[in-house]
Amino acid sequence: MAGIFIGVDLGGTNVKIGCFDHELKLIAKTSVATKADMGPEAVVNRIGETTEKLLAENGLSADVIEAVGIGVPGPANYAEGVIIRATNMPKFKNTPLRDMVAQKLGKPVILENDANAACWGEYVLGAGKDIEDMVFFTLGTGIGGGVVVNGKLVKGCCGNAAELGHIIIYPNGRQCNCGQRGCVEAYASASSTAARAAEAVRAGEQSSLKKVLEEKGQITCKDVYEHLAAGDKLAKKITDETAEALAIVCVNMLHTTEPKRIVFSGGMIAAGDVLLEGIRHFFKKHVWTLKAESPQICFATLGEDAGIIGAAALAKQAQKAGK
Amino acid sequence: MAGIFIGVDLGGTNVKIGCFDHELKLIAKTSVATKADMGPEAVVNRIGETTEKLLAENGLSADVIEAVGIGVPGPANYAEGVIIRATNMPKFKNTPLRDMVAQKLGKPVILENDANAACWGEYVLGAGKDIEDMVFFTLGTGIGGGVVVNGKLVKGCCGNAAELGHIIIYPNGRQCNCGQRGCVEAYASASSTAARAAEAVRAGEQSSLKKVLEEKGQITCKDVYEHLAAGDKLAKKITDETAEALAIVCVNMLHTTEPKRIVFSGGMIAAGDVLLEGIRHFFKKHVWTLKAESPQICFATLGEDAGIIGAAALAKQAQKAGK
Repeated sequence: MAGIFIGVDLGGTNVKIGCFDHELKLIAKTSVATKADMGPEAVVNRIGETTEKLLAENGLSADVIEAVGIGVPGPANYAEGVIIRATNMPKFKNTPLRDMVAQKLGKPVILENDANAACWGEYVLGAGKDIEDMVFFTLGTGIGGGVVVNGKLVKGCCGNAAELGHIIIYPNGRQCNCGQRGCVEAYASASSTAARAAEAVRAGEQSSLKKVLEEKGQITCKDVYEHLAAGDKLAKKITDETAEALAIVCVNMLHTTEPKRIVFSGGMIAAGDVLLEGIRHFFKKHVWTLKAESPQICFATLGEDAGIIGAAALAKQAQKAGK
Repeated sequence: MAGIFIGVDLGGTNVKIGCFDHELKLIAKTSVATKADMGPEAVVNRIGETTEKLLAENGLSADVIEAVGIGVPGPANYAEGVIIRATNMPKFKNTPLRDMVAQKLGKPVILENDANAACWGEYVLGAGKDIEDMVFFTLGTGIGGGVVVNGKLVKGCCGNAAELGHIIIYPNGRQCNCGQRGCVEAYASASSTAARAAEAVRAGEQSSLKKVLEEKGQITCKDVYEHLAAGDKLAKKITDETAEALAIVCVNMLHTTEPKRIVFSGGMIAAGDVLLEGIRHFFKKHVWTLKAESPQICFATLGEDAGIIGAAALAKQAQKAGK
């Protein structure tokens, strides 16, 4: 056996682990609760033991591991392998996760931003596998991003490039969790889309979503797209604003790294064609007429596996580069 | 003699030509009228003859040329070496400039966007020579841009990356020459800064610039900054808006390619520290508080030579890569 690469996607709720062969073919995967409240050491032990168990179930020992890649939420010092802090894992503060996992498994480990890892997964095996220049968005509670230029992930001077959710599109606009105002995340993430709908209903706008808010005490992004499908006018307005915000960022990325393809992923793409067509519609409205531009705007193809695939692929790449 | 690289900066009014040794040290330079109205063939002959004359004046023959780099205004097909069209050179339409100059001089030629060439010049020998990740803006009639990621110029899937002047910062805002609305160029270029001042005066706002408009029939960007220095309130408002627009694009570039340094160049930087301090002030106002960020925001150091230096450096790089 030529050896195995492990891809880990560490989230606040669950940690996903996959083992891959040298061609990045998935051999097996699993998902367990992170139990982040038990602290970094317990989480590292869980990652190590779950990995060993997964390998054992497939007749493999941990000795065959060549390298491990871990996608983590930022901000982190990726070069040093340290999580600075993590909103969903408050006990992780200046945690040297890379070296802790490396010690636990006795193998080389690399740390990468989780959205960058998912972007890289889509780039090597998914929606971007046939191109060189790609821009990637994850639409979930927040908006994450990744940028591939000339076949390489853009990492930035300090490893924090491609925080695309925090591109400002409406200066002095809605407050974002990051402290800025007017970020695309404050308009077009799943939670911001839901929040704008709830605010409009509370402000007295007519909508079939009013009943949802009254009965459930909240409105989800899924609710908004369901009521759009049922013909609700407020849902149309809210989802148009979401699509327009995303389209403006697409125009801006076209003028920045000029991707061949812009790929959307994350839970919110369950909204389907209506979301994609909305983005394309507003892209055409806002983009210049100086010359014909046609970056492809499409959905990711790997689903939830993108993160573990990308983490494993980055581990393989780092090992190849002798890092 | 190890051979010479020629850098050409082709503008609508003048064409600048420099000859450089293998260490990119300037041996001699000149500037002549482009005479673009005489058409592409005449311009190519002028470039060829001026280059040969410049070399002869320095005791060199055209035989010593190793490669030629030409910076041109877009849009162009850089990979094919063809100018598609040029606002200031209407007779250039689908002009295969690269091959025309190559035939005239009998040497390899590369074509690059003029702002990218100037960016590369600043990167290799000027404000960015000690870093790996840089963002570059030229502030003139329009706003040009360049992006260096991990020591390489970002070219994009079709050679038109880094059109940073056309990043939309105020959706549905001021009309830009490119056809879009709300581009940073429509607010913060030298001509847009002047235009906004003139519009405000015509709309009846009180300002010492009113007299300028009455006497000269127009207001220049230089006028606006001069009246700012003299304490005019409208000039303060207009130049604050310019600085804020540029600051927002800086925030957005931080979240995209995370440069170590953001470099401003072009005629407008003659405004001096007041411009730089304004951009830094509004950058701090708009940037997130999630973590400490401090891209350096500074001026270019090579002045008008950046374009010919960068063009020559790109020619050298292409020759080295065997292209």
